[in-house]
Amino acid sequence: MLKGHERGFEKREYEERVRQLQSGMAGAGLDALLVTGEADFRYLTGFLTRFWESPTRPWFLVLPAKGPPAAVIPSIGRELMAATWIGDIRCWESPNPADEGVSALVSAIQELTPRKGVIGLAMGAETHLRMPLCDFNRLLEAIRPRKFGDATAVIRKVREVKSKAEIGKIGAACRIAGRAFDEMGRIAKPGRELHQVFREFQIACLRHGADHVLYLAGGAGPGGYRDVISPAGSQRLSQGDILMLDTGALFDGYYCDFDRNYAIGRADDTARRAYETLYSATEAGLSAVRPGALACDIWLAMRDVIGKSGFRALDGRLGHGLGLQLTEWPSLAAGDRSILREEMVLTLEPGLEVSPGLIMVQEENVVVRDAGAELLTPRASPQLPVL
Amino acid sequence: MLKGHERGFEKREYEERVRQLQSGMAGAGLDALLVTGEADFRYLTGFLTRFWESPTRPWFLVLPAKGPPAAVIPSIGRELMAATWIGDIRCWESPNPADEGVSALVSAIQELTPRKGVIGLAMGAETHLRMPLCDFNRLLEAIRPRKFGDATAVIRKVREVKSKAEIGKIGAACRIAGRAFDEMGRIAKPGRELHQVFREFQIACLRHGADHVLYLAGGAGPGGYRDVISPAGSQRLSQGDILMLDTGALFDGYYCDFDRNYAIGRADDTARRAYETLYSATEAGLSAVRPGALACDIWLAMRDVIGKSGFRALDGRLGHGLGLQLTEWPSLAAGDRSILREEMVLTLEPGLEVSPGLIMVQEENVVVRDAGAELLTPRASPQLPVL
Repeated sequence: MLKGHERGFEKREYEERVRQLQSGMAGAGLDALLVTGEADFRYLTGFLTRFWESPTRPWFLVLPAKGPPAAVIPSIGRELMAATWIGDIRCWESPNPADEGVSALVSAIQELTPRKGVIGLAMGAETHLRMPLCDFNRLLEAIRPRKFGDATAVIRKVREVKSKAEIGKIGAACRIAGRAFDEMGRIAKPGRELHQVFREFQIACLRHGADHVLYLAGGAGPGGYRDVISPAGSQRLSQGDILMLDTGALFDGYYCDFDRNYAIGRADDTARRAYETLYSATEAGLSAVRPGALACDIWLAMRDVIGKSGFRALDGRLGHGLGLQLTEWPSLAAGDRSILREEMVLTLEPGLEVSPGLIMVQEENVVVRDAGAELLTPRASPQLPVL
Repeated sequence: MLKGHERGFEKREYEERVRQLQSGMAGAGLDALLVTGEADFRYLTGFLTRFWESPTRPWFLVLPAKGPPAAVIPSIGRELMAATWIGDIRCWESPNPADEGVSALVSAIQELTPRKGVIGLAMGAETHLRMPLCDFNRLLEAIRPRKFGDATAVIRKVREVKSKAEIGKIGAACRIAGRAFDEMGRIAKPGRELHQVFREFQIACLRHGADHVLYLAGGAGPGGYRDVISPAGSQRLSQGDILMLDTGALFDGYYCDFDRNYAIGRADDTARRAYETLYSATEAGLSAVRPGALACDIWLAMRDVIGKSGFRALDGRLGHGLGLQLTEWPSLAAGDRSILREEMVLTLEPGLEVSPGLIMVQEENVVVRDAGAELLTPRASPQLPVL
């Protein structure tokens, strides 16, 4: 177990999040914020539980223009919510499909927001409404003449910049997964089934202090792998395989998201060159990261290195935000002109086609600092490690 | 590792799911089904990945009234989807916030559904729309005069009854977690921090063959615990504590969902009696399960036993469906008049208040068989185990 991993947040951190959101809401003409999704809900309350796996019950938080938020939640969550900083907790007995919190939510909104107010709701990119759509349509009617407005930009602007405590948690998750990757020589033996490799890696993450390993994907094959989102398969590791594992291990509700590549037994020159190209691309990305740079600048810096190597860069983004969720805004992509700000946490994730249908990717996690990129992940080896 | 755990499904199983859904759709006047959520999507495609952790990309499946479904997905999923039984795969390059699959989806819907058709969508209890609401509103406009209708009842009717292969996977998850619980004497030592207990339990699940441990909650305290959804805490196990762990371990995409209780060092008479009451309540629930019984009948059978014991039964449901998700329809609750059918998989989960503010719950997983309940979980000990 690693030492010095602090859990939870000070109350003043939540108060600061509320202050920033309310300031953004005022600027956007939003008279309140309705939160239904796990990440935003936890961001504002500290309500940490794996119970979101159950789709049965919605959870609501209403943040008025001024003052603290009100939690409108199933009574099964009352005890856990009472242990957070939230003082205004309103419960209904759930499940109750005939009125799954809608009346309770309507009452809270009517009490906490002006009659002709606009209620902010995350409706834009990378967000979902976590309540039944039929209930949302009932809600729309019941709160009239209030209406909903998109709060994605307001939420995004606040959540993208991480506090020192948040960076500490993401960094802890990175160190934990890094130590698990250090054990791959023991874990990824030739002849071992990928299912077992994936499992042993998860066990190593847990042993080093991960609370959960919610994301794990990867692949293995001669000279490369076919995608980056596949689960374990029943194939066995063979000499000459390139193995990649990509993990989102959690510490105290915060993710790391990075991968590592290994050659099993031996690596051919193409695989080595592909690996070193990605290493150089990441170096270029690391050098490009600074406050004021655009997300697409970082993408371009990485893509240029790949382009000059003769390999084809993978389409799509080459990195993204990270924190409460495995992936967050922005995207390091051609079209993304988001301005990087200090204390944003990003993944740099260049990828290329090694040969037709076979790819390789590398990923690191960084904080945007005034002086440039600060690595949260232990930097990958400059050369393709051979196990 | 347990032997005999089969992975994947035969193609004919997916074809049968499609046949049943299309039959239900016809009966409900739905001309197609649009799927956005992970469970339904996987149910129809076999597309198994932890990549749903990333909220960035939506995934769509359009099932027409006749014929096979079309997957409209981000290109990052093309390779993995090509390994499923799905033949019609349409991709867009994602992320693309300006058009995150909406145009591609509109084209697919226009091609596969009648101009004045009603598109079924899961909008009811225990469902969520997994795409940005702004994009959904754009979709609503773009597919006119088609409109959406609630498909929850159609989907639910089909998904509630599990195939032999599905029951096999849920059973495998139950056996795996059962073997992990068998190790609690080693895992839950007095003085050990709950974080470590939760971690060691996850490791045991993985060692016994779980692919992931996505749900884990529990508690420990003198004479009982305060809720059932809390994560690990930093308190240390003490003599006289009652420890409960509730897990959703997965095998091949299917959950178990059950808990076990232990006394640390010693147990007082009240705790023993509470435990035995719950054991008897579960026995009553097991006896009540049969095709044709109502969900509320099972609830009543369990609640009656608790009521006669002098303890107060917990409010809310005392069990639920289980399978692709940690919790599924129906609810074993007072108001739920769902008719149990053969091959439904349920949890029986009686709970009571041991003393003010302290509760105890027990949970088992069963299949509804013609002859009654068939346990998938190794039955809990009749007496409170003392570690």
